[in-house]
Amino acid sequence: MNTSIVRYILGSVLKIEGALLMLPVITGAIYGESEGFTYLLVGLLCFLVGLLFTRRKPKDTIFYLKEGCISTALSWIVLSLFGAIPFMATGEIPNYIDALFETVSGFTTTGASILTDVEALSHTSLLWRSFTHWIGGMGVLVFLLAIIPMSGGSNINLMRAESPGPSVGKLVPKMKTTALLLYRIYFLLTAAEFVILLFCRMPVFDAICLSFGTAGTGGFGVLNTSVASYSVTIQWVITVFMILFGVNFNAYFFILMHDAKKAFAMEEVKAYFGIILASIVMISINIYRMCDNLFDAVTKSAFQVASVITTTGFSTADFDAWPSFSQTVLVLLMFVGACAGSTGGGIKVSRILIVLKAVAKEAFSYIHPKSIRHLSLDGTPVKHEVVRSINVFFDTYIAIFILSLLLVSLEGYDMQTNVTAVLAAFNNIGPGLAKVGPTQNFFFFSALSKIVLMFDMLAGRLELFPMVLLFHPTIWKEAFERRYHSKKEIKKANKKQA
Amino acid sequence: MNTSIVRYILGSVLKIEGALLMLPVITGAIYGESEGFTYLLVGLLCFLVGLLFTRRKPKDTIFYLKEGCISTALSWIVLSLFGAIPFMATGEIPNYIDALFETVSGFTTTGASILTDVEALSHTSLLWRSFTHWIGGMGVLVFLLAIIPMSGGSNINLMRAESPGPSVGKLVPKMKTTALLLYRIYFLLTAAEFVILLFCRMPVFDAICLSFGTAGTGGFGVLNTSVASYSVTIQWVITVFMILFGVNFNAYFFILMHDAKKAFAMEEVKAYFGIILASIVMISINIYRMCDNLFDAVTKSAFQVASVITTTGFSTADFDAWPSFSQTVLVLLMFVGACAGSTGGGIKVSRILIVLKAVAKEAFSYIHPKSIRHLSLDGTPVKHEVVRSINVFFDTYIAIFILSLLLVSLEGYDMQTNVTAVLAAFNNIGPGLAKVGPTQNFFFFSALSKIVLMFDMLAGRLELFPMVLLFHPTIWKEAFERRYHSKKEIKKANKKQA
Repeated sequence: MNTSIVRYILGSVLKIEGALLMLPVITGAIYGESEGFTYLLVGLLCFLVGLLFTRRKPKDTIFYLKEGCISTALSWIVLSLFGAIPFMATGEIPNYIDALFETVSGFTTTGASILTDVEALSHTSLLWRSFTHWIGGMGVLVFLLAIIPMSGGSNINLMRAESPGPSVGKLVPKMKTTALLLYRIYFLLTAAEFVILLFCRMPVFDAICLSFGTAGTGGFGVLNTSVASYSVTIQWVITVFMILFGVNFNAYFFILMHDAKKAFAMEEVKAYFGIILASIVMISINIYRMCDNLFDAVTKSAFQVASVITTTGFSTADFDAWPSFSQTVLVLLMFVGACAGSTGGGIKVSRILIVLKAVAKEAFSYIHPKSIRHLSLDGTPVKHEVVRSINVFFDTYIAIFILSLLLVSLEGYDMQTNVTAVLAAFNNIGPGLAKVGPTQNFFFFSALSKIVLMFDMLAGRLELFPMVLLFHPTIWKEAFERRYHSKKEIKKANKKQA
Repeated sequence: MNTSIVRYILGSVLKIEGALLMLPVITGAIYGESEGFTYLLVGLLCFLVGLLFTRRKPKDTIFYLKEGCISTALSWIVLSLFGAIPFMATGEIPNYIDALFETVSGFTTTGASILTDVEALSHTSLLWRSFTHWIGGMGVLVFLLAIIPMSGGSNINLMRAESPGPSVGKLVPKMKTTALLLYRIYFLLTAAEFVILLFCRMPVFDAICLSFGTAGTGGFGVLNTSVASYSVTIQWVITVFMILFGVNFNAYFFILMHDAKKAFAMEEVKAYFGIILASIVMISINIYRMCDNLFDAVTKSAFQVASVITTTGFSTADFDAWPSFSQTVLVLLMFVGACAGSTGGGIKVSRILIVLKAVAKEAFSYIHPKSIRHLSLDGTPVKHEVVRSINVFFDTYIAIFILSLLLVSLEGYDMQTNVTAVLAAFNNIGPGLAKVGPTQNFFFFSALSKIVLMFDMLAGRLELFPMVLLFHPTIWKEAFERRYHSKKEIKKANKKQA
């Protein structure tokens, strides 16, 4: 394995984090909070360590999927390890494991919190907490691609490891342009939400934080009641934007290219809206008796459906008290997740779409054994390898889920708590049911469970494989072998490449 | 579709059921119970209807997988529809839906009951109830293959549709011999258990019924306490036999052929015993504090593990009161199920084994992109189509599971009840947790939920596809088209075949 490039990427990521930490520093300055000073120090620390790591440029720029996965996984871990320091240093989250949980939950856009009283945090920390969602939503490595020129042409491997969805298409031939385009769409949508929220008379600070939380489909809020105490208009604005951030960003790209027809024809997007609509209708009917009127039922249902399917995790109603049919629908939506190529988590609509098509195809071949039928999505045939890798994805997903569930269940809480806690962490949602329901938090779990859930959050955000590979002995063996190797091989490989 | 052969098979199945009903008739005669007379009448009815169906021999003997699936699904439905009549006719289960639920649960070897007081049943009905397990365990169509000569040579399709597991191997070249061999092993093992139970001083009637229930991995008992009130020795005998009936019968075939080495080398069997052992150890440790001593903990743990993994469903302890770690392990075992080619249900150990190997292979190719690695089980390569069809099996499994869960959750019971009820029915286990725990029953569900659960039991027993195909419009369209077709095509097809 090419360890020097991995080191270089980690260093760059840390430098970026140092720069990003300046936003809470500014917040601290505005509100005159001493916490801002702590953030400044941590920011400098990140920058210095980053400099140390990037001092030597890697001579060898060969970069395969393996290196992409490993640097992605390690980047996110390093990002979280440093990002958690200010929470502890300011004394707002005294335990480092808890601070780390909150940070991982932030970066992975999960939104599961260990805080019982969010409102006790300083503005500085609240902003950093919400900002991690925004950073994690699009991915910091995609950002890296946008600003740092990397050679080898194989940096698609970085993006592939970080982007949500079964297959990453380049929007435009150049990777850098694609990354920049994605960030532009992301920024514009966030800004739009911010402005509209201001028009709805939300305080500026809340509007910034909630826009970050919605954009990254994260779910951290600034009030203990999440979004429930804002006006109904604001709730609907957030509902709409949550749904918008769950759409495959390719659709926005098509719209930007004045090809809206193509955007609306995307099968995944159609299925996504279909599922949302059907769920809202079913839940509205089911909770109607508990609500003031039909509009109230639809408002609550739509908000919770949007929040869960996009894996955001805001809440305006305690769905833990809803009838079990509605709960079942929500739990199923937790699995489904948003569209591929969005900031949302979960299994992704397109994966489910492809799997359903594969089942239909198989059933057909049962009846007509000699028929040959091809799978296609949006008119283009789905390669056999994609179907296979989706199935492997499912199997790995189930394996990680089971292992996590077993470890968490060692604590002895009820099964609904355990299952939905793992589900909410793994699919980057935030709240689950029972003891981790929307009005509860994750504080009561042991350190072991918190570590398991952090792994799940990272595995869920990075689509399993980068995190799984970290535990593969071969990777480490290769990395160490490489260290003690003569530099001949590197030169040889470089020659081959050229 | 060849409807006449389907009709003929259904008729034959009914005739067999008529004959099988004579066993409870004899029981009624021995115990002097008037219920025996009812069973006699129903037996005659089955025989007469069967005669009517088989009056005309089908001219066309072409028989594809499609026909195999449809006749299997319909056979099991017809078997249950008629088998439920005596329960209602004797007045012991007055509601026909309830009687049908009990019968489907019997034939599919599920063992989920709607009875609150099992001991109130007559000996005649108790015996029939347990006998349905024994019949369903090996499958009535395999029996048909053993006694009825069928042409076309494609009757493997019947067996493939009825046998549990990802792929059916013929043990010996001739289908009929294979079927006879399987029944011989089945009969011998059942007889062995019966004799040993007698030696342990179990009453003859109980020994017969419990042997039937163990052999078919069913789970209906004759006492309200299931197996808990028998001696510890008896509990261990039943534990061992449950595990034995969950072993792939091919292993016994190898042993019969004096090739025990080959039997013990089977990867599925090794994994099966490994899972059982690991689960017993984990649960014993987890429930130790609730038990009298270590032996008591191991006894309870071993019995429940054996009962759940083989999908039998007997119980000696109320595991609904166990700590959540043990419950989680048991719920996972419910999914796993027994070996393929056994009488047990569930997903099957070999499917899980193949899936795990596929995941390992994929992970390896992530690291070494150019490597070519082959999947193999027991030294023989697993065909790509097998892996694919297993994945489709999983996807269909999940789809049916979700749909059933949604329908059952409409009743508004808690999620643990709903999830484990569907799980217990679908995997042919019997008891679940919470409201359907080992000390409870399924009586309280609405007719709709009962029908959903019956479908799940049948789909689980017949490995999904035969039941799913029943709902495929093409099948019915073809069947009707065929009816109104000229007989030319049949002749043409027959010529082609010849």
